[in-house]
Amino acid sequence: MAQVAFIGLGNMGGGMAANLVKAGFDVNAFDLAPAALQGAVEAGCSAAASAVAAVANADYVVSMLPNGAIVESIYIDGDQLLDAIPQTALIIDCSTIAAQNSRRLSEEAQKRGISCIDAPVSGGVAAAEAGTLAFMCGGTEQAFEAARPILSAMGSKLFLAGGSGAGQVAKMCNNMLLAVHMIGTAESLQLGVDNGLDPAVLSEIMLNSSGSNWSLEKYNPYPGVMDNVPASRNYEGGFMNMLMLKDLGLALDAATGSKSSVPMGSLARSLYALHAGKGNELRDFSSIIEQFKKSP
Amino acid sequence: MAQVAFIGLGNMGGGMAANLVKAGFDVNAFDLAPAALQGAVEAGCSAAASAVAAVANADYVVSMLPNGAIVESIYIDGDQLLDAIPQTALIIDCSTIAAQNSRRLSEEAQKRGISCIDAPVSGGVAAAEAGTLAFMCGGTEQAFEAARPILSAMGSKLFLAGGSGAGQVAKMCNNMLLAVHMIGTAESLQLGVDNGLDPAVLSEIMLNSSGSNWSLEKYNPYPGVMDNVPASRNYEGGFMNMLMLKDLGLALDAATGSKSSVPMGSLARSLYALHAGKGNELRDFSSIIEQFKKSP
Amino acid sequence: MAQVAFIGLGNMGGGMAANLVKAGFDVNAFDLAPAALQGAVEAGCSAAASAVAAVANADYVVSMLPNGAIVESIYIDGDQLLDAIPQTALIIDCSTIAAQNSRRLSEEAQKRGISCIDAPVSGGVAAAEAGTLAFMCGGTEQAFEAARPILSAMGSKLFLAGGSGAGQVAKMCNNMLLAVHMIGTAESLQLGVDNGLDPAVLSEIMLNSSGSNWSLEKYNPYPGVMDNVPASRNYEGGFMNMLMLKDLGLALDAATGSKSSVPMGSLARSLYALHAGKGNELRDFSSIIEQFKKSP
Amino acid sequence: MAQVAFIGLGNMGGGMAANLVKAGFDVNAFDLAPAALQGAVEAGCSAAASAVAAVANADYVVSMLPNGAIVESIYIDGDQLLDAIPQTALIIDCSTIAAQNSRRLSEEAQKRGISCIDAPVSGGVAAAEAGTLAFMCGGTEQAFEAARPILSAMGSKLFLAGGSGAGQVAKMCNNMLLAVHMIGTAESLQLGVDNGLDPAVLSEIMLNSSGSNWSLEKYNPYPGVMDNVPASRNYEGGFMNMLMLKDLGLALDAATGSKSSVPMGSLARSLYALHAGKGNELRDFSSIIEQFKKSP
Repeated sequence: MAQVAFIGLGNMGGGMAANLVKAGFDVNAFDLAPAALQGAVEAGCSAAASAVAAVANADYVVSMLPNGAIVESIYIDGDQLLDAIPQTALIIDCSTIAAQNSRRLSEEAQKRGISCIDAPVSGGVAAAEAGTLAFMCGGTEQAFEAARPILSAMGSKLFLAGGSGAGQVAKMCNNMLLAVHMIGTAESLQLGVDNGLDPAVLSEIMLNSSGSNWSLEKYNPYPGVMDNVPASRNYEGGFMNMLMLKDLGLALDAATGSKSSVPMGSLARSLYALHAGKGNELRDFSSIIEQFKKSP
Repeated sequence: MAQVAFIGLGNMGGGMAANLVKAGFDVNAFDLAPAALQGAVEAGCSAAASAVAAVANADYVVSMLPNGAIVESIYIDGDQLLDAIPQTALIIDCSTIAAQNSRRLSEEAQKRGISCIDAPVSGGVAAAEAGTLAFMCGGTEQAFEAARPILSAMGSKLFLAGGSGAGQVAKMCNNMLLAVHMIGTAESLQLGVDNGLDPAVLSEIMLNSSGSNWSLEKYNPYPGVMDNVPASRNYEGGFMNMLMLKDLGLALDAATGSKSSVPMGSLARSLYALHAGKGNELRDFSSIIEQFKKSP
Repeated sequence: MAQVAFIGLGNMGGGMAANLVKAGFDVNAFDLAPAALQGAVEAGCSAAASAVAAVANADYVVSMLPNGAIVESIYIDGDQLLDAIPQTALIIDCSTIAAQNSRRLSEEAQKRGISCIDAPVSGGVAAAEAGTLAFMCGGTEQAFEAARPILSAMGSKLFLAGGSGAGQVAKMCNNMLLAVHMIGTAESLQLGVDNGLDPAVLSEIMLNSSGSNWSLEKYNPYPGVMDNVPASRNYEGGFMNMLMLKDLGLALDAATGSKSSVPMGSLARSLYALHAGKGNELRDFSSIIEQFKKSP
Repeated sequence: MAQVAFIGLGNMGGGMAANLVKAGFDVNAFDLAPAALQGAVEAGCSAAASAVAAVANADYVVSMLPNGAIVESIYIDGDQLLDAIPQTALIIDCSTIAAQNSRRLSEEAQKRGISCIDAPVSGGVAAAEAGTLAFMCGGTEQAFEAARPILSAMGSKLFLAGGSGAGQVAKMCNNMLLAVHMIGTAESLQLGVDNGLDPAVLSEIMLNSSGSNWSLEKYNPYPGVMDNVPASRNYEGGFMNMLMLKDLGLALDAATGSKSSVPMGSLARSLYALHAGKGNELRDFSSIIEQFKKSP
């Protein structure tokens, strides 16, 4: 069976590695945190002594790391993993980082004859555990197809957005738009309520009209309108404000680089920074509606 | 057959009155503009000599007028139509106006024992002609049910949003949210393109992800991505920027009245004012994406 | 000595009427609230039994009322004060209201041969008591000159902005700009502090550079940087958030009417609505900086 | 006389180097562009064959480079200038770059025993030539004092903002605030004009009221109100939109790093991106007012 090296076993990576084991892959796992590594072992992975050790005979190297500086440090400048990875291996970096970081990784890999795709995910911890993540990928069609067995074991939706880095761009565009319609939905619902409407009735009307969007359909931010969403459990679980803030930061960095005007996305970032800064970093991102409610 | 008085035969009202005729109603129509009145006659309406004459024996009074000042002037302060309408009639005002204008009309009607609902529409001229408008209504359930035969002859979706004025509030909330996700969609697509993505590929990915919304699904603003939308015919037809600007103005007036914070909606109004002010008043509202494109 | 009728003796009007007495005018005062009227009597005014009674022999009618609906009701539609005011009198309305309300008052006055100017103030309660208000006036030059003795008794800066209503427009433009640079100053200072700078040092640098503005010079929002400003007394006193919110609402109403794009002013209104809605209605408007501080 | 190495002789650097010559310093200049180098020679500098050659016996190294990547490349990663600079020299980097780039340069210099300050300027090409720049510096007080003779030869205002990188932070905060009040001034003036006011009269009123700010006082954006400003010469000369956009990008990068909410600054960046993107990159930044004017 194919050998997978898995680097980065946090909340997301842990579930993803476990799903690779379930799908029958031999997984050599590594994480600097012993507890995370122990969890992976319990899920059926082998514990590697280092990142370099993990990749020794890998057919696939999968990584899930917190930011671009760490990705560059592990693969290129610090651990120099690229020099230890077999030329026949395929790198699948699932970290959410700047497109330019992904492009540098890909170029450095290519210099050594190694294929690489960026494959950031959407769906959160629950989807990581359930194997229902969405992957937005950047790379060649050939590399994307080669990655399919691995990605299919961890997710249910696979998209090829374009060449190297395109997966990152697609994810940041999507999440910026998500932030915009979540806030737009929140302030529209609250405006309706402030003017005497029932939030459930207004939600139903807009859901069947041109205001319809994913936030309204799957993730209504107004408490009590929809069951089984964070708004109905005090915004616990779900997609944390600090992660939305991170993704919006990446989107704005990209906009700065390309001199793009993104007024709604910029405003969304500042509103999430304001909201997260008031002690809400760990709460679900639909809690932004609380900023629009009057309180004594 | 029931008698309908129809006041206001513009682009929208003309098509609506014609559909009432087709459904078998006797329609006494009035408009200050002779050409508009003539068009209604050709569609099978009787021409009334004045608004007061039109309502003489009406079972229903339907009005479609451009703003709240005109609605108040015709019904209350100027023509004093309320004093000429039979007590047994039902007033269905389809104008898009401030909720407070609708509430005043309803209160004044009630003083005279006349029932009244506000029933602003969405769908535009094409839907007015096709009889597929959506109506967002405010009034009692009884009045809403009484209006159903009339509304069904002109539209395909009927919503009761709450008491008097609630139809207006629902419409302005919906259209504010529409403006927000249209602009958000436009700037997200352009950010993706500025960073090397194909707009059709990015659209497909976001449509199947959490960025999904009505603008992306039915009304893609990027030229060439979707057939049969304004973006594919130089933004002709569709929903004009000046009308979106008007609706956003109503939403902000409501927000001012209720001291509500609507940062995304406010920004949308200013961006539509900027865009409309550059000679785009009559073009479709998805043309806002042109503001985000670089040009020499 | 000239006779002045003074209508509206709230926090602002009370101090203004007292200064007219001090300057030697005979002041016939009226307010619906007995306590307010009593205060004016203690300051040397005569108490009138009604607004109509107050204006009987007036050379000047000065009014300071909370909103446009009340101004129109007292002068025109309700008390019909215009029919009781001598033709030789000059009306000086100091209320902060929409320009269209001021223009209607002026037109109705003119029909009866009475001169009228709008003269909204800036400076707050302290300046009203000290007689150091600024007046931004709209009307003819002749009426402005005729008003000068009265205005000089209550204020230290007199501006003629243009014809009827222009005083209102000038005030709302000024206060919108004030809100914009106050928020801009607040977020710039906080960004500096978040990146390691001393707020006093940064304030000094920007005050001597192109970032300089009235908020930085007279009203630093960062606690401890400047003495004798609201920021140094927990934002008590000063110019209340609810009043800034009201003025921004008037500015946006004007922008809606003239189809103007005011993105910064719109955002300022939403941020003040958010801030006021969190229990800060009565605190000074420089407290907006608290929204940009992180708190647990 | 003291030896100065000057690296980077563009529009700004050329004038600055010339002023050092005028003040009596021996200036060894270097630039990759032969024409720029030739200009410096004509101003009295000696031409160095390389950056490394220029610094050989320097008492001061002054650099004026376009971005942080180039600064890091020349001093550290590429040319490794730090290894060629005498330990007794003082580095004065006048480039406008991210604070983190300045801090890395300072740390690397310190490792080699070399002192370093960041000293970004404000004032533009005219001030560079006239020797009236403002310098916002980051570093120790000792280094700042040591730099004073050099800075005084090129500028008229010297500020010490704090430790290493603080000069960059101060400049980006100041310029963000400048952008905010410039746009606020522009939209307030245009709102007034759209509502019937004379822009000169309104400017005068706000300048004497709480709306007062540097843009209104020194740099009125409305054509015809003030002489000798870019608005009176079709926005030629002055501070280019592309440079303001760059500075706002640096400010937002800092805000992303510190998780700060900067709603006004963010909106300013998007409006400048929109404006620059319409062919206005090289025009003065006060031309932003054109976005708020209606045009056919």
